[in-house]
Formats: sequence, structure tokens, C-alpha cells
Amino acid sequence: MDASRRIEADDLEDIAIGGAVLGTGGGGDPYIGKLMAQRAIRRRGAVTLINVEQVPDDALVVPVCMMGAPTVMTEKLPQGEEIVVAFSKLERLLGRRIDAVLCCEAGGLNSTTPFIVAAETGRPLIDGDGMGRAYPELQMVTFTLHGVAATPMVLADDKGNSVVLETIDNKWTERLARSCTIDMGGSALLAFYPMSGGVAKRAVVRGTLGLAAALGRTLRESRAAHADPVAAVAGKLAAQHVFDGRVADVERRTVGGFARGAALFDGLEAARGHRFRIAFQNEFLVIERDGAALATTPDLIILLDRDTGAPVTTESLKFGLRVACIVAPGPAQWRTPAGLDLIGPRYFGYDIDYHPFAPA
Amino acid sequence: MDASRRIEADDLEDIAIGGAVLGTGGGGDPYIGKLMAQRAIRRRGAVTLINVEQVPDDALVVPVCMMGAPTVMTEKLPQGEEIVVAFSKLERLLGRRIDAVLCCEAGGLNSTTPFIVAAETGRPLIDGDGMGRAYPELQMVTFTLHGVAATPMVLADDKGNSVVLETIDNKWTERLARSCTIDMGGSALLAFYPMSGGVAKRAVVRGTLGLAAALGRTLRESRAAHADPVAAVAGKLAAQHVFDGRVADVERRTVGGFARGAALFDGLEAARGHRFRIAFQNEFLVIERDGAALATTPDLIILLDRDTGAPVTTESLKFGLRVACIVAPGPAQWRTPAGLDLIGPRYFGYDIDYHPFAPA
Repeated sequence: MDASRRIEADDLEDIAIGGAVLGTGGGGDPYIGKLMAQRAIRRRGAVTLINVEQVPDDALVVPVCMMGAPTVMTEKLPQGEEIVVAFSKLERLLGRRIDAVLCCEAGGLNSTTPFIVAAETGRPLIDGDGMGRAYPELQMVTFTLHGVAATPMVLADDKGNSVVLETIDNKWTERLARSCTIDMGGSALLAFYPMSGGVAKRAVVRGTLGLAAALGRTLRESRAAHADPVAAVAGKLAAQHVFDGRVADVERRTVGGFARGAALFDGLEAARGHRFRIAFQNEFLVIERDGAALATTPDLIILLDRDTGAPVTTESLKFGLRVACIVAPGPAQWRTPAGLDLIGPRYFGYDIDYHPFAPA
Repeated sequence: MDASRRIEADDLEDIAIGGAVLGTGGGGDPYIGKLMAQRAIRRRGAVTLINVEQVPDDALVVPVCMMGAPTVMTEKLPQGEEIVVAFSKLERLLGRRIDAVLCCEAGGLNSTTPFIVAAETGRPLIDGDGMGRAYPELQMVTFTLHGVAATPMVLADDKGNSVVLETIDNKWTERLARSCTIDMGGSALLAFYPMSGGVAKRAVVRGTLGLAAALGRTLRESRAAHADPVAAVAGKLAAQHVFDGRVADVERRTVGGFARGAALFDGLEAARGHRFRIAFQNEFLVIERDGAALATTPDLIILLDRDTGAPVTTESLKFGLRVACIVAPGPAQWRTPAGLDLIGPRYFGYDIDYHPFAPA
């Protein structure tokens, strides 16, 4: 079965919005990635989106993404060519043609950056990613769970500098790449985790780009039909509507290249009288209700504008904003002991265990 | 004329001490480098030291060194193999055999680290370097003055991580390499500035390893003869004896991977009644007498133990130590407008011009 689809520039509108939903507050501004990807597609032609099953086992697959604090990325617009530089340098280094491009993070900016590389190089893009959402650190991908080394990895910046890393493990990759990214002005473009098609079939979270497109379309159509956009998005994700609330306070700081902080919400409607707190490191990680943990990573903690259903990022949280919080089950690969070691609440410093979210 | 000399393990005693004199307070602990180089020579055989004139114009020449704050290096002993890893990786990357090893910094630790690579790989080592002394930043080499790019450059650490940099200029190399070095635990081993033999002939400060050996021998022989070691070293360097003094205070801090600070001295003997201050960033950069600048980089500001003549590093400065300060003319290449732009007192933030030191 050939499940290839052609993705045109206009298709990226839905993918970018849906990617911001899956971004769980982080993953960078999807608007920037969308513009860059649309420019690339208009110039070079449509991108062929394929299923990972279509990739031969001995094919070479390479994920690409942008790294950096979202707060910086929105102020420092990348040109788009840097990510192709990183991809091409890694291809030269590997000494072999890369057969397919892969998305490492389905959330936010990075749901669209792989389209730039796919359009500029004419390679197919696999419908899937390495997170099924967004996460703040490089080693937090399902590829790590399957023993794929992040290196050799190429970082490129907008000035013409590049760095090749070869590290003893993927946490060292994160550490060195983070410092280089900060030096490079807060954001950099990466090509890394080279893997075979066979490994990709085991490791990839399937269909996340198609899901992003479906989420974007659902949001658009429900608005056009004057239906409840929050209910429509929650339905598409098999998510629970956890609370409606109004932002009461936001504390944030950029530390070590990350946007860290927490937001407080006063409950509205059915949640009136309750206080909610959502802690984030680029992405929303833990919800507390009246001081008790309610849902944590890897479940997807998603905030939507209560009126429009538009996804709310950590950067756009501001006093008085009315939001709906929905929680969707995290990808199955993350809900394993090895997965939780990598992205569970304890990794992020919270003294709680993961329990799959269940409505009270 | 074949001016090759064979350098045995025992010869490194003098080179290490002389290198510490040329290190002008910095360049790292020569003892560590000496031990590593002696071990390599005992295991693999003597190193052939050649003059740069013996290198064919189309030969490939690569400098190697250790990077890091000396205060860290003395606590984190490198194994020695890492520097060979960096060299070998760069050779593979360049796709061509490296014909000769070069020293980039004649001072301190890095006067002996190139012997490790030369011994382990069987390549000749050129008698000369890229500073004629020690300096704290990567771009501060005569190679930069001759248009040599610092990259492609390989950094390797003691754990097995490596980084390849390709940068738009040599200050960007310094910036990215510094961050990686800090991440790697404060020190890293480098191979960089690949250049042809023809360029090396124009760029290299000649004979600095031979000079280090001669300084070490002079110091050893003058002690054995109960002669004045300070006068003997000063004579060998055409240096002026500027003052004798006692350390009254030292302020130091490790900032951004550098050991920065200043030492205050109460004058002794002919200098009695005067106050001296020497500012440093890894190396001694500016002497002031009673608040007025007396000598600055690129002239070599050298402190010797008043009694033994042993070179005094910024780390070994401590209250009460009696020192002799001598100043030798900096290498001619540095005393040009382009040279002073790179390493003059203004680059280091001092609002003074360089004037060749002349005794009052």
C-alpha cells in the first residue's frame, strides 16, 4: 500500500496549529516554522509524506529540528537554510545519501521544520516523530529508548558556524549542544540520530504529523461551524477536559537555555473554588489541583484558549487569560519504566510517580 | 642543513621549566604536561624536533594543545591519549596524512603537550609556536595574523566525547570551544589551525622550544654554580630586571573558564617604597608601578622565585612570596598594529597603549 501524500504550502496551516496543540505549551512558535516551510515548498515543490512502513529496513533516516528556548526563537527568526546546512553536512559526514527525513518532535515549531529540509532536498518525510509531543531536552526521544545514538550530530547557526558532536551518550549530546546553542545566540538547527529504516520502524511514534493536520482541521472546522472547539480537539485526542480557569499568576525565567516556570489558575465553571498550578520547562509537565498532583508528563497537558480553542504556549500565558485544560494519554512508549526514566516527573525534579491521568 | 634533534624523555625537564618561564604566569602546570610527554617518549621513542625551514611548502602541519583554566587542569589530570584522539580525528577529517606537529603555545603545559602527539604518532615536531609565550584565548596566535582559520578543529575530552567546530572566524572558535571545554569538566585537548608548510614558515615564532630548553638548562646550571638564577634567565631572554617584591595580596576568580585577577607586591631592595600590581587573565598582562602602567602584553612579564629562580605561575602566587619580575620584549609579530589588535592591552580591557618596555 502506497500511503504517500503530497503536502502543499497551504496544508501547513493546519499542521502548524495542530503541532502547537501537541506542543503542550512548548516546542517553539509554530508560526515561524510554518512560514519557513511554506516558503521552501512554494520555491521547491510539495513534500511527499510517507508512512514509516514504506521505508526500506536498510534506508538511512535522519531527524532534524531546531533547538533553543522558545522565548529566544520568537525574537531571532531563523533563515531556514541553516537546517538544510546541518542536514547536508551530516550527509557528507556519513558518506551516504539520506533516504528520508524524520521529525523528532511533533510539537510546535519542530512539527514544521522537517518540511523545510524535505522540500529543499527533495527527500520524503516520514509521518511520525520521536516524542509524540514536545519535550525540552535532546535525549528525550523514543530513539534513545531504542539505543540510537544522537551523534554524529551537526548543529548549524544563522551566521555560518557549525559544530559536529560525537558523544559517549545522548545526555552528553544534550549538554554540549545546549552550550553551543546558547553561544550561537539561543537557537541552532540540528541533524542527528541517524538510524536505519528498520530501527525507525521500531522507534517512531507513528502518524503524529497526520494527527497534527487533523487537529488543525478539527479546530478550523469547529470554529466555522460555531461548535465548541475545545470539545472538538479533546474528542480528536481522546483527551479529558480537566478544568477551565483564568491565569492568576505566571513566574518564568530563562535558565540554562530553557524557559522554566509555573502558572497559577483560578478555576472557572465546574472548577470554581479550586486553584490549579501547571509547572513547565518549555513544555507543561505537571498539573496540581489545590496542591495535589493531578496529571504529569508523559501525559499531554494541553491548554487551549477557552473561547477560540487556539493552543496556548508557555510564552503566551498572561494574567487574566481564560483557558481550558485538557489532558491526553502520553504515547505508549513513554509509559514504560525505561520511558519514565527519561521523561517521567522524577527526571524533571518532581517527587511524584507517574499515574495515567484519570478524571476524578 | 638538517637541524633535526632527537628529544629524549630527560630533555623534557629543561623544556618544561623553560616553558613555564615563557608561560608568563599561565599556560598551565608544566609538571603535568612533562609527565605525560615523558611517558609517551619512554613508550614510543624519542621525538624528532625539526626547524620549520625543513618542512616542505606543501606539507600539512597541525598544532595541538590543551585548553582550559590552569586552576582546573591541575586538579583534573588528563590521560594523554585524548590529545592523540583529537589529532587523529582531525587527520581523518582532513583526509590526508599530517606531516608535522606544531606547538601553538610555548608556555607552560602546552610547551610539552605536542611532544605527546609527536611521540605517539611518530611525526616530527617543529621547533617554534604560535605565540612565542602563552596567551589565554584560542585566536591569539600568529596563525590568525596570517589568515589561518582555526577550524576545522577537533576537541576531545577524557571521557570519550569529541566536538568538531567549523566557524566563520577564530573568535567564534574561541567562544564555542570555551563553552564545550567548560562542559567537558574544565579542560579539553585540541587539534586545529591546519596549515601548509609554506604558511607555517611565515607564521611560526621560531625556535621557542629550543629557547625553552635553553632557559631550563640555564636555570639548572646557574643554581648548580650558585650563581644568580634570575640574572642568568634575564640574560638568556635579553630581559630587564624590573623589580623585586613580596606578594602583598592576590585577588583571583575563575570566570568564563579563565583564571582572572591581580596580584599586589611591596617592592624590595631597589624597589623599596614602591607598590606594584600585576593583572592577569591566565597570563600576566599588565604591570603597574604606583598606579602607572610600566609594561604590558605582548612584552613577556615573568615572575621568578627570588631565591631559586623557579618560574611563578598565577596559581602559585601567595602572600609573602618573594619574587623577581623580569620583562622581555614580546615577539616581533605581536608588536605590529594587527598583532596588538589581537593581544594588546586594549583587547584585554585596559585603557592604555602598548609601549615597548624600557627601564625607567
